[in-house]
Amino acid sequence: MEGEPTRVMMGVNESTIKGYSHASISSRGAFEWTLQQIVRSNTSGFKLLFLHVQAPDENGFDDMDSVYASPDDFKSLKQRDKARGIHLLECFVNRCHEIGVQCEAWIKKGDPKEVICHEVKRVRPDLLVVGSRGLGPFQRVFVGTVNEFCVKHAECPVITIKRPADEAPQDPVND
Amino acid sequence: MEGEPTRVMMGVNESTIKGYSHASISSRGAFEWTLQQIVRSNTSGFKLLFLHVQAPDENGFDDMDSVYASPDDFKSLKQRDKARGIHLLECFVNRCHEIGVQCEAWIKKGDPKEVICHEVKRVRPDLLVVGSRGLGPFQRVFVGTVNEFCVKHAECPVITIKRPADEAPQDPVND
Repeated sequence: MEGEPTRVMMGVNESTIKGYSHASISSRGAFEWTLQQIVRSNTSGFKLLFLHVQAPDENGFDDMDSVYASPDDFKSLKQRDKARGIHLLECFVNRCHEIGVQCEAWIKKGDPKEVICHEVKRVRPDLLVVGSRGLGPFQRVFVGTVNEFCVKHAECPVITIKRPADEAPQDPVND
Repeated sequence: MEGEPTRVMMGVNESTIKGYSHASISSRGAFEWTLQQIVRSNTSGFKLLFLHVQAPDENGFDDMDSVYASPDDFKSLKQRDKARGIHLLECFVNRCHEIGVQCEAWIKKGDPKEVICHEVKRVRPDLLVVGSRGLGPFQRVFVGTVNEFCVKHAECPVITIKRPADEAPQDPVND
């Protein structure tokens, strides 16, 4: 029954909480759930594929006070984005390495929901795991939901892991 | 990392193909997917919980020609339904027994989507797996979709396993 490991793709993103340059609460929750409930002790039976999608305008508001005077300013901005993405993925890859689960991680630019579905088509994982803030319909209008789009459009089985209510920050739109 | 097994609830139903008293193609697909991609060789790490919900009018059309003349006629009808449900669950339980995966199976009456969500609340599985015919929006209007309701309302992570296109019967509404 063994053979090729089950390839689990995980969409991971940064926390939206200011000054907190780590994975979002949802991403970490989805990752820990996958290890505890799916991988369990069978560390050689699974391979985790971490995809981090950087939306172009994600940090738009933070950059409102910046002044761009030369092409190099944009270059350094891009390098900063890349560095943050690498830092994010490093946490997940390190944890997999510690417990002996094979993994791969990469960064893409674009609209997260579109890019995730496109990468599913390209990489063909056996399963896609996405975290969700578990917001109500009113809150969802403002933040959009990557997971609902993926459940509908991704060409592989999708599992949505809702953030536990007791881990929600003061403003539940944050993550 | 081991301890209590991961409890996976599976909603299973009969095939809608006439004269074919077996599990639906979707149910069997979801079951085999779970064994291959999630359980793998870690047979002691999981416990499968099979729930079969019998909708009261599911076999309504088959019974159009029946004549009910006494309370006993209904009793035998109910016994026939129960026997079919037991036969359905037996296939899944036998297969689990063969490969050494713990399981439980039970039958409930009612609207499948409502009952599944109610049973999730009662039994508190770690994961719910449901099969889906993968119908388009036009076909869905007529047959309803249990999986979409469960993804929205079940109080645990839900995974929908779509029926592979090459296993669809001539009329894709059949299963």
